[in-house]
Amino acid sequence: MTSDKGATKDLFVGIDLGGTKIVTALVSEDGRIIAEDYRQTEATRGLAGVVRRMTDAATKVMKSARVNPGQITAVGVAAPGPIHAESGVVTAPPNLPGWKDVPLRQLLQDELGLHTELENDANAAALAEHRFGAGRGTQHMIYVTASTGIGGGFIVNGELYGGATGAAGEIGHMTILPKGPYCGCGSRGCLEALASGRAIAREARERVACGVPTLIGDLAEGDLDRISAKLVAEAAAQGDVEAEEILGEAMTYLGVGMANLVNLFNPELIVIGGGLTKMGERLFNPVRRVMHRRAFHSSMQAVVIAPSQLGDDVGVLGAAVVAMVSQQ
Amino acid sequence: MTSDKGATKDLFVGIDLGGTKIVTALVSEDGRIIAEDYRQTEATRGLAGVVRRMTDAATKVMKSARVNPGQITAVGVAAPGPIHAESGVVTAPPNLPGWKDVPLRQLLQDELGLHTELENDANAAALAEHRFGAGRGTQHMIYVTASTGIGGGFIVNGELYGGATGAAGEIGHMTILPKGPYCGCGSRGCLEALASGRAIAREARERVACGVPTLIGDLAEGDLDRISAKLVAEAAAQGDVEAEEILGEAMTYLGVGMANLVNLFNPELIVIGGGLTKMGERLFNPVRRVMHRRAFHSSMQAVVIAPSQLGDDVGVLGAAVVAMVSQQ
Repeated sequence: MTSDKGATKDLFVGIDLGGTKIVTALVSEDGRIIAEDYRQTEATRGLAGVVRRMTDAATKVMKSARVNPGQITAVGVAAPGPIHAESGVVTAPPNLPGWKDVPLRQLLQDELGLHTELENDANAAALAEHRFGAGRGTQHMIYVTASTGIGGGFIVNGELYGGATGAAGEIGHMTILPKGPYCGCGSRGCLEALASGRAIAREARERVACGVPTLIGDLAEGDLDRISAKLVAEAAAQGDVEAEEILGEAMTYLGVGMANLVNLFNPELIVIGGGLTKMGERLFNPVRRVMHRRAFHSSMQAVVIAPSQLGDDVGVLGAAVVAMVSQQ
Repeated sequence: MTSDKGATKDLFVGIDLGGTKIVTALVSEDGRIIAEDYRQTEATRGLAGVVRRMTDAATKVMKSARVNPGQITAVGVAAPGPIHAESGVVTAPPNLPGWKDVPLRQLLQDELGLHTELENDANAAALAEHRFGAGRGTQHMIYVTASTGIGGGFIVNGELYGGATGAAGEIGHMTILPKGPYCGCGSRGCLEALASGRAIAREARERVACGVPTLIGDLAEGDLDRISAKLVAEAAAQGDVEAEEILGEAMTYLGVGMANLVNLFNPELIVIGGGLTKMGERLFNPVRRVMHRRAFHSSMQAVVIAPSQLGDDVGVLGAAVVAMVSQQ
């Protein structure tokens, strides 16, 4: 997007609703964050409270920038899937216990008096990386978030691809080991059950619980509940063989999943974001190596594998882009 | 497409180039085959001969319908992948030994003096089912060919999706068992290595060679070279337990692959064609059952799994549709 200093720009509010926190920002049409707000979701305290915290945050970011609601073009919300984007309903997110078929878009629109759009968080992040991040100018791009779970969004011909009912892009629930570990989705051997932060922590806990000698147990001070993917990465960085093996296996599966995406979609770019990418080359090296062994040579030559450029802002910027796209 | 009797219709020539035979047809814009020709490819006798047999066949179908080349709008060719659709080059098809970077489109265009387009056979078949077969009117459709190999083509927003370099749709080379059997593509555990006709025959040969008691060996009269997927299906139809197990495993893997496509693409329709579909419900029942266990419930509710409607004509009609699409 070109920046035209001095001209009045459209303003958007993006709200990134997560299971633990809500990030809200006032965003200009060229992707600049003008004001930002962080607060706890406190999902267990009920839906009405969450909606109030979201509207309070939206009001606060506008006020802090001395902007009144009349100057806002639209509000975009990124929420944990699954959702129905068209009807603006959050169906049954595992991270928001007790929520079932919540008409979140309508609730927020009524409270704020502003046009509001809803999208699932992975699709919103894909839109953000495509418009303002690593994917600028691409036609065929895949965004992958490798975090507690694994999700993604597809950009096809320069636009978000939703499929028949807006549910496309469930990268984490492609089976790559039919008799592998059971998955939260009810299937088994899904990429998410093999390569996500949750899968890494589960594998580490199993080994520690079985008495396998590893630094992971020491770092967790024997408390299985303290074992996380981050802790495993710390142990691996200190040369712990078990931790290295756990991460190596997870990254191999992630590479298999990415190779599948290359053979199926022939994308020009795969952007990988999410907490696991904080491992840097400990993630990207094995993923690239596996992809080169598994995917078609010509399709590998055509694709770039890149880290997310928007970092922790990808969610709230994505929410804002959802609002922008609705105005085109 | 509407049929307007009496009006002059555009005419197209479709040429379906296979490893063993060439099928050529004169096709009207509404998908009617006016004249058809079958002949052997005789690929081992050299490129020039194959090109001559293709142009001879094109000339013959025009003559037999008393149509002169000036009445033909365009020629479409479906060829075994991988190809470069844009440049019209057949790169290195395993089924056409000795062919390497053959500029087939240019060769045929020069010989015939008619505008010619080239597409890989699975994409051409997807176009045919979308325009004239099971996929009429759909926006998001996947065509899968389950035959000696496994291939496919994606229709996205009503159009063929090629990806960055036209190589999208390699359904057969999605890994679904990372340590599974090696595959012709150089990887291992690909869907094609687990569920194709070739994979079924290989598994059957292995069992017979090891002396496992099965009707398959009897039907092949002890000759391992005579064991094919068709023979395994015959043995299964006669109640042979080994044959039933081999097919059951292959169809389970096919179901895993189809479930992955549903979770990734959220299509409204998956059309399955190719020789293996001659097994009918022995293929569709287990595939549907596995898909329902593995794929997201909401996405499964949105998708129809249907057999190809164009049968053996899907290849040559697809070639003709490639020509039609080039004129839009």
